[in-house]
Amino acid sequence: MKSNTKPHGRLLYAQSGGVTAVINATAAGVIEAARAKGVPVFAARNGILGALREDLIDTSKETKAAIAALRHTPGGAFGSCRYKLKSLDANRAEYERLIDVFRAHDIRWFLYNGGNDSADTALKISQLGKAMGYDIRCIGVPKTVDNDLAVTDCCPGFGSVAKYTAVSTLEASLDVASMADTSTKVFIVEVMGRHAGWIAAAAGLAGEGADAPPHLILFPERVFDEAAFLAKVKATVERVGWCTVVASEGIRNAEGQFLAEAGTRDAFGHSQLGGVAPVLAALVKEKLGYKYHWALPDYLQRSARHLASKTDADQAYAVGKAAVEYALAGMNAVMPVIVRTSDAPYRWKIDPAPLAKIANREKKMPASFLTRDGFGITAAARRYLAPLIQGEAPLPYSKNGLPQYVALKNTAVARKLEPFAR
Amino acid sequence: MKSNTKPHGRLLYAQSGGVTAVINATAAGVIEAARAKGVPVFAARNGILGALREDLIDTSKETKAAIAALRHTPGGAFGSCRYKLKSLDANRAEYERLIDVFRAHDIRWFLYNGGNDSADTALKISQLGKAMGYDIRCIGVPKTVDNDLAVTDCCPGFGSVAKYTAVSTLEASLDVASMADTSTKVFIVEVMGRHAGWIAAAAGLAGEGADAPPHLILFPERVFDEAAFLAKVKATVERVGWCTVVASEGIRNAEGQFLAEAGTRDAFGHSQLGGVAPVLAALVKEKLGYKYHWALPDYLQRSARHLASKTDADQAYAVGKAAVEYALAGMNAVMPVIVRTSDAPYRWKIDPAPLAKIANREKKMPASFLTRDGFGITAAARRYLAPLIQGEAPLPYSKNGLPQYVALKNTAVARKLEPFAR
Repeated sequence: MKSNTKPHGRLLYAQSGGVTAVINATAAGVIEAARAKGVPVFAARNGILGALREDLIDTSKETKAAIAALRHTPGGAFGSCRYKLKSLDANRAEYERLIDVFRAHDIRWFLYNGGNDSADTALKISQLGKAMGYDIRCIGVPKTVDNDLAVTDCCPGFGSVAKYTAVSTLEASLDVASMADTSTKVFIVEVMGRHAGWIAAAAGLAGEGADAPPHLILFPERVFDEAAFLAKVKATVERVGWCTVVASEGIRNAEGQFLAEAGTRDAFGHSQLGGVAPVLAALVKEKLGYKYHWALPDYLQRSARHLASKTDADQAYAVGKAAVEYALAGMNAVMPVIVRTSDAPYRWKIDPAPLAKIANREKKMPASFLTRDGFGITAAARRYLAPLIQGEAPLPYSKNGLPQYVALKNTAVARKLEPFAR
Repeated sequence: MKSNTKPHGRLLYAQSGGVTAVINATAAGVIEAARAKGVPVFAARNGILGALREDLIDTSKETKAAIAALRHTPGGAFGSCRYKLKSLDANRAEYERLIDVFRAHDIRWFLYNGGNDSADTALKISQLGKAMGYDIRCIGVPKTVDNDLAVTDCCPGFGSVAKYTAVSTLEASLDVASMADTSTKVFIVEVMGRHAGWIAAAAGLAGEGADAPPHLILFPERVFDEAAFLAKVKATVERVGWCTVVASEGIRNAEGQFLAEAGTRDAFGHSQLGGVAPVLAALVKEKLGYKYHWALPDYLQRSARHLASKTDADQAYAVGKAAVEYALAGMNAVMPVIVRTSDAPYRWKIDPAPLAKIANREKKMPASFLTRDGFGITAAARRYLAPLIQGEAPLPYSKNGLPQYVALKNTAVARKLEPFAR
């Protein structure tokens, strides 16, 4: 491709998996970079499902200001999905359908913005060119609050939930500290992270030293040890006067059961998912007799664009921009990843990495990031985590006191094919 | 008192009840106003208990910068308490002790910063002068996230939790909207408010119109109607594709039971307090079969200084300043209250109101603020609520990405009395 010729064809962008506070910043990076090159961008509504359904959005109908506002708008502006393509052998019809849709709309580049599963989907699509004779370049674009993608130093979306978690832990702890004499002594925050404790670890940035909150962090990487947990809570309350606990939703007991499922039953006798905090609170009350409170921010933590990290928002935009550059340069089956070149001062750059090294892998916390007792983070963890929450990414508020989040028009592209019957 | 003479004696300030994101802004208003008049300020550690225990803090040991930083620091800087004084007849010894402590430290003005119960305590202390022959002026200073104090148009602390709730509801709803096609269809946020639905109502500011979130608000002022709730959730999901519900922790069924206590049992068979959201979620799953998520921000909502309302932060400071002015002017048994003089543009002023009209009363939401079906707020409610979340109150962040919250030295005043044995 010559650099002074307008590239031929369209670029398709789609969002996948759980959304984040900054995934739309990536979308802004993609669309602004493509517009600068004169390449039209379609977006698939609800991720890969939009491609299968030929449910496409024409982003050229959006104003420059609307695309710029994506940079500070949480959620997934084009809709996302949880849907994993099967292998080519197992469901060839789906891949043929994708090729049909790509061909009908002259899609030459496909950018899939997601986590592990989405990298797998992107990798499969990147192989379609050879397998099925349609020339398509596919770039995976990283995104996940779980921070568990391989190769990349960190994942866009994580820095902001990390900042939210650290700040919220600090703020709620100031509240608990002032009331502990006559009220709550133990406060438990449950955070996301079913398999990896990155978000819980980030709460550790709220304070440093044995007396600073959070006093205990519970990681899915460690088996929950009830006796050790209770002993440390008790010692903390006796020494400090109160205790803040941050628990990953994914902690398990020695039998491998999720704590969230092991105890509590709802009104219908079903095990109550997504609630390890109340289980821990009941334990504290039963065994130690302390007054407790617990919080479960759930989606609030991953959508809190109002408290985004500047590092994270910048990186989210940068991977979108880089993905377009890689695609237009003819690269295929790669992902723009974040490479850390210095801890302090923090410096990073974007480089391409093969999707084959990323798809379906999962990066857990290194053992060296957890303290010996398993309830805290080490200096090495702080060195890694600290830069990711640095900087604020302020957003415009309207007169009514709410953030000015944009709602796109999301104009549908006219369909050219028959509906897809799976 | 002549205006050009330095007043004689000390002022004692104490924080009471659940703390807020802006109660320390009131403390800053008190201390800065008193310093300007040359009046020394002691603070009682942990509210009225500090006065009973002669556990006093000398605020003159704090720098000007530290006091100024209170204006953006959440929690209760001097500690708070949940402790209600009995009547003079029932526990005369406590009142005698207070007089002893006041006399020993030349306390001539007592400012008690809290809600209904604290206004009652302040009122009782204001009557000590006549009853027990010690000249003390007592001013109640308003504070409560519950917004349920009588007389005042609104309560410092409420505007910020209202803003947090509206913004969080909006952000999480953008998340849910983008995932609804293949994931969560119903999202439930549980907010504070055991008796009055002010905080839940504030979530209604997140959007306007039948299709905008929150689609249902559940108020403690209305009996929970399971059939109507399920029908509206179902209709919303069928029309919009997803549904956001905001529920007050205090909603009750027709039998008068808290929903949070009526259903769920924890691992030990105890009823699970503070969790109406999981009960509603289980109901949605059981009766409608929709995938759900729920959030319970708990203390996060009332300590979120990072998202404070400017209106609220300004009012919190103003009531502290006014309380000092009233006290030094010789007023007694009053509270500086917020008087709304205009809705749009929003204008307010501070006036003194008798504590006797405030103590132990509770302001519920007017019926005219709830829509006919009981699941939303009316235009009248919007007119009242909207100004309270207006404006942002930015705070300084350190290089590490955390807010720069101040920790005071809280230097103890030397004790002059024997310990108080109740």
